[in-house]
Formats: sequence, C-alpha cells, structure tokens
Amino acid sequence: MEARTFTFAHPPQKMCLESGATLGPVTIAYETYGALNAEGSNAVLICHALTGDAHVAGNNGAGNRPGWWDTMVGPGKGIDTEKYFVICSNILGGCMGSTGPCSINPETGRPYGLSFPLVTIGDMVKAQNALIDHLKIERLLAVVGGSVGGMQVLEWCVRYPQMVVSAILLATTMRHSAQAIAFNEVARQAIMADPNWKGGDYYQGPKPDLGLAVARMIGHITYLSDKSMSFKFGRKLQDKSDFSFNFEADFQVESYLRHQGKKFVERFDANSFLYITRAADYFDLKRQHGQGSAAKAFSCSQARFLVVSYTSDWLYPTLQSRAIVTAMKKNGLKASFCEIDSTLGHDAFLLPDKRLSPLIKGFLEKALP
Amino acid sequence: MEARTFTFAHPPQKMCLESGATLGPVTIAYETYGALNAEGSNAVLICHALTGDAHVAGNNGAGNRPGWWDTMVGPGKGIDTEKYFVICSNILGGCMGSTGPCSINPETGRPYGLSFPLVTIGDMVKAQNALIDHLKIERLLAVVGGSVGGMQVLEWCVRYPQMVVSAILLATTMRHSAQAIAFNEVARQAIMADPNWKGGDYYQGPKPDLGLAVARMIGHITYLSDKSMSFKFGRKLQDKSDFSFNFEADFQVESYLRHQGKKFVERFDANSFLYITRAADYFDLKRQHGQGSAAKAFSCSQARFLVVSYTSDWLYPTLQSRAIVTAMKKNGLKASFCEIDSTLGHDAFLLPDKRLSPLIKGFLEKALP
Repeated sequence: MEARTFTFAHPPQKMCLESGATLGPVTIAYETYGALNAEGSNAVLICHALTGDAHVAGNNGAGNRPGWWDTMVGPGKGIDTEKYFVICSNILGGCMGSTGPCSINPETGRPYGLSFPLVTIGDMVKAQNALIDHLKIERLLAVVGGSVGGMQVLEWCVRYPQMVVSAILLATTMRHSAQAIAFNEVARQAIMADPNWKGGDYYQGPKPDLGLAVARMIGHITYLSDKSMSFKFGRKLQDKSDFSFNFEADFQVESYLRHQGKKFVERFDANSFLYITRAADYFDLKRQHGQGSAAKAFSCSQARFLVVSYTSDWLYPTLQSRAIVTAMKKNGLKASFCEIDSTLGHDAFLLPDKRLSPLIKGFLEKALP
Repeated sequence: MEARTFTFAHPPQKMCLESGATLGPVTIAYETYGALNAEGSNAVLICHALTGDAHVAGNNGAGNRPGWWDTMVGPGKGIDTEKYFVICSNILGGCMGSTGPCSINPETGRPYGLSFPLVTIGDMVKAQNALIDHLKIERLLAVVGGSVGGMQVLEWCVRYPQMVVSAILLATTMRHSAQAIAFNEVARQAIMADPNWKGGDYYQGPKPDLGLAVARMIGHITYLSDKSMSFKFGRKLQDKSDFSFNFEADFQVESYLRHQGKKFVERFDANSFLYITRAADYFDLKRQHGQGSAAKAFSCSQARFLVVSYTSDWLYPTLQSRAIVTAMKKNGLKASFCEIDSTLGHDAFLLPDKRLSPLIKGFLEKALP
C-alpha cells in the first residue's frame, strides 16, 4: 500500500465546478495497492462512500488502522491486489487529505469553512479523473463503489464512458428519494443547530461534536435494518437488570448509537458531512445526464456492469437498483444484477459476505482483456 | 366542549409511580363533549398520542384551534358526541395543562425540570383512572387511542379490565422495536445536545428550540412513509428552478421538515418530549403485565376489541397489531382486526379516512348496552 497525494489546478489554473464556481489548488489524497501492468490494463478504481477515505485495505503505518474494505481488497481477495492495480482516493470535499472545507484557503490563509464551494458527485469524479490522468492510466478495468461510492461509479460511466471497461455498483441509487433527502437534511440541521458550528467557522475553537454525533446516529439507523436491530439489540438492557428511570442509556441500542456518535466525531469533519450529504442529495443521473431519462444517461456507456442490491436495504431499496439495470439494458449494455438476501440493511455491502467476494472476483476476471 | 382541570394527590397524599417515586399534587387537564347518560354507560375515553392534548374536537375559545381529531369526534361523526360522553385528558408528563416537567414543583416553587420523576404509560393511565373516578364513571363504554394513545388503551384493558367494555387500538404496538427506540433516542440526544437545554433547567431563559426542532423532524420522517413522501414531495424544488449550491432549503421536503420543526417548538415543551418518548420506549405489555407472555397480559380482560393497522406504517407495522390480536384471541376475546390500505404511513390514523369513521361508528354502536 502506498499513500500519496496529488495536487492539480495550481494557480493561476482553477478547477471549474458544476455550480460555476472555481476551486484551486486541489489536492487529492490517494492510496494504491499492487502494480500497474505493462499494458496499463489492470487498474481498478474504488470509490468510497459518505464517510470513507483512501485507506481501503491493509493496515496503515500510523495506528495500524485496517482499511474500510479490507475484507474485499488484498492479496487473493475479491479484488485481488496481486492481479490488479487498485486505486482509492479521498473524495473532493472530504476531510481525509483531499481538499475540503477544513483545508486552508490559500487566498485567506484560513480554513475554507462554508466559503468552500458546493461540490457535486460530478466534481468529485472530475477530480478522480485528474488523478487517473496523472497516474497515466488511459482506461480503468473497473470502477467499483457502494452507496455514495456507487453514485461516483455511475457518474464515471456516463461522464467518461470511453475510460470505463467495467463497473460494479453496490447498494446505490440514481437519485435520492424524498425520504433519503429528509434523513440527510435532519442530520445537517442537527449539525447546524450546534452553536459550536458557528456558520461553519469553528476550526479555531471547539467543534460541533454534539451536533455531528446526532447526525451520525440518524445515519446509523438508516444503515441498519429493523430486522438487524431487532436481532442485534432487541429490547436488551445495557449492563442492568431493570430500567434506570432516568435518561441514561438503558437499552443496548441506545448505548450503541451513543458510542457510534462519539467515535465518529473523532475522525470526521462536520462541514465535510454537510457538503458530501448535499452532493448526494443533488445527485440525479437522469436530470444531469439524461434530460430526465435514465436510459438516455447511459447512451454513450460501453461498460459491462455488475449491480448488487440487498433485500433489507431500505435506504436504497432493490427497486432503485432494478431501475439502473433497466436503463442499462435499454441501451443493450451487459448488466448482471444480483439481489443478495441479507438482514443487515444498507451497511451489508461493507460487511464480510461469502457471496459478494466470489461474485466480484468472477466479474473482474471476465473483464480482464 | 368543556375544558376543565382536576387535581388529586393533594398533600400529604401523593401518587405512587411505577418507578417507586411519588408525585403530588397531580393536575389533569381534560375536556368533555356531549353528556353522560343516566346509566353512566356512554362514556368514551380518548387517549392522545405523543404530542396531542385534551383538545380532541371542536374549536377552542382561544385561537379557534381545531381539535387534533376533529374529523372523527363531534356531532354525527365517527365518535358521535350526541350519543357519547367523550372525555380526553392531557397525559401525565405532558405540557398542555396536566402536571409535567414544566409544572411548578410545590416543594421548590420552581419548574420541576429533570427533578420530575420518570412516568410510565401505566402512570399516565393511573392518573386517567383517577379522573374517571372523579367523574363518577364506573365503566367506560370504550377507550380509544392511536400510537402512544393506543399503548394507554392497552394498559387500561389489562390494568382496569373490569372498567373497559370495549377498546379501539389504532396504529399501535405492545412494545417498541429496537428501531423505534433508536429513533426516540436520537431525538432525545438532539434535545440534550442543545446547550439551552441546560440539564432540563431552561424555564427561566431561552428554550432548547433548535434541538427540539431536530427531534420533531426525526419524528416526522417516521410518521410518514417513503411512498407518501415521494408522492407529496419527490425531488421537487422549493420556489426555485435550480439548486442554490448552498445549504438553503432547496427541496420541498427540506422546507416542509424545517417548517414542522419550527411550528412544533411554539407549542411543545422539550422536557415533556423526553419524558413521553421514554415512557413509550419503556412500555412493554408482555414484560409488565404478562411475565413475558402477551396472551397472559390479556387474561383478565373482558373487553371487545377493534384493532386497526395501516399498510404503510413502518413505525408500528401491521405485524405488531396482528400480534396484539393473536394474544387477545388466545384468551377467547372478541377482537376485530382491520388493516387499512394506505400510503400515508403512521400518521394515517390521524387523517380523515372514509373507511375508519364508519368502522369506529359501527363498533361503538354494537358496544352500547
């Protein structure tokens, strides 16, 4: 594993964003695994979800933190780093090394905060594309991602169709439903309600940790399923035999959520949470690339697709994956679809699963020239 | 409509609570509609849900506010106030006239705040029972309620079985799932994260409005359904033709949620929200009344039941209503069950529906001696 950064759009150049705003210089933090072959035909780009980062596999030098998809990516694994040159970068707007709202604005010498321009999924992919150019890779054997990472994969396929040989989409959607937007909006409101947020200008003082923790807890409920929560927690009490009759965490599920909230604020920037959820809410493949038609959006694509959904994913339910496949098929594209029976909810795509690894392994092997 | 209050547990008496704590004096705000007949056999008690109050029907003197179930309760309506003597009281722990955390603690001369003891659904029903005694009513022709109101109905049936002739349960449950607890917990955390909450002691200064608004927004998502939100809002933008590329309310669903949050803080007390959601989470009919068995819980009940669920209610799904009916049937009780096909989610029970009114009307007529 090699962790590096790449900076582009140096002054006087700037990156043009979908909103019309410009941004620069732009740094993208990325990691690579394995080696690019002589033909440059074995590159696999992995796009991370909302709160992920470039560290997709292996253990980091610092802290020995395992990668967020270490169960899938590595020697001999579903995405085999002995066969493929795997690249994963932190998204634009993120807070794990790539330029985002917590980065220093070179024009003021202070963190951007809310002066950071709104970035879209398209902008994130455009920045990834600059990185791929920099790595001198002409075509990607596969672009892979789940959830908000899957949105980036979709964007790659329609924005740079000639560069994508194959694509793997997990637990994703062409656009958020009203309910998905609603959950994100409430999470954002929780952050902005925290007085430490200070209009996004909190980098010199205390952070809006309480608001961000609530935002994370809201998210967590949507990542699990009613069934998995019943199975995992039910109404079990936390280290006690009866109710406390106060507002302590009596139920295990309460204590789990509080813990998730607390852990999250140590590693994530509240403004990045705002920007990335907003980008996900704005994402609308039909509207942005198909003049309202999903089929039209894929009209230039040449990739082979693997689309995977999970039965208990109620954030991006199977119906939404089926709609993606239907749009692909209307263009005569090769698209395999698999709905995995799981009680684990949306999070299932991140968890070890004995069905997913061989599925991805087989799909990638067929894609190899 | 007559709005009155009744106060009991005057010093040195106190009301004994399920937690072991005591509370007194206790005031219950209530309204009555219609007249009690000579036999005292036409009394119908309506139990309100989380954020309701005693004003179930008609227009108030002040503000001409319509009752929260005015579509169902009134002359000639589903619950006909020309036939029945209808009673509705604000629950113990509430903030609409009954004793709750915002009431003055006579021992300190200041609002209770968090020194208010935790009350349970059982305590709420015990207080309602004191009111019914005070009104010199020996038996209730019907106890009716939806959601958290339905929990109170269940509690009435098992706690005072000889007093309940019939019961109507709408969109309710015998106990919260882990997911339902999770949503309540996150809402509570949003309130407690607001620095204006000050450990519940905010009555002299600014209120935790921002936290309470977020809590309400979270609730609102669970009261609607994915379908109803798609139908009502979809991805429609609010008074604009394109994205703002900032954090304004671009989508109609965002602006709707913000509005719901803002409206709510004008009428509700944040501490009451904490106490009532906690009572709902604690409620567990099996555990508290059946030694773990739902059937056992109903063993002393003599009532006739009408249980109604809604297809799109994912907070208290139909499965949970079916479990209630099964437990009743195991005791040979007469229980009619109706699942109403609706896209409106949990909130459906509060909304006008041409099927529900005749259903309730017919059921009550059969219950009349």
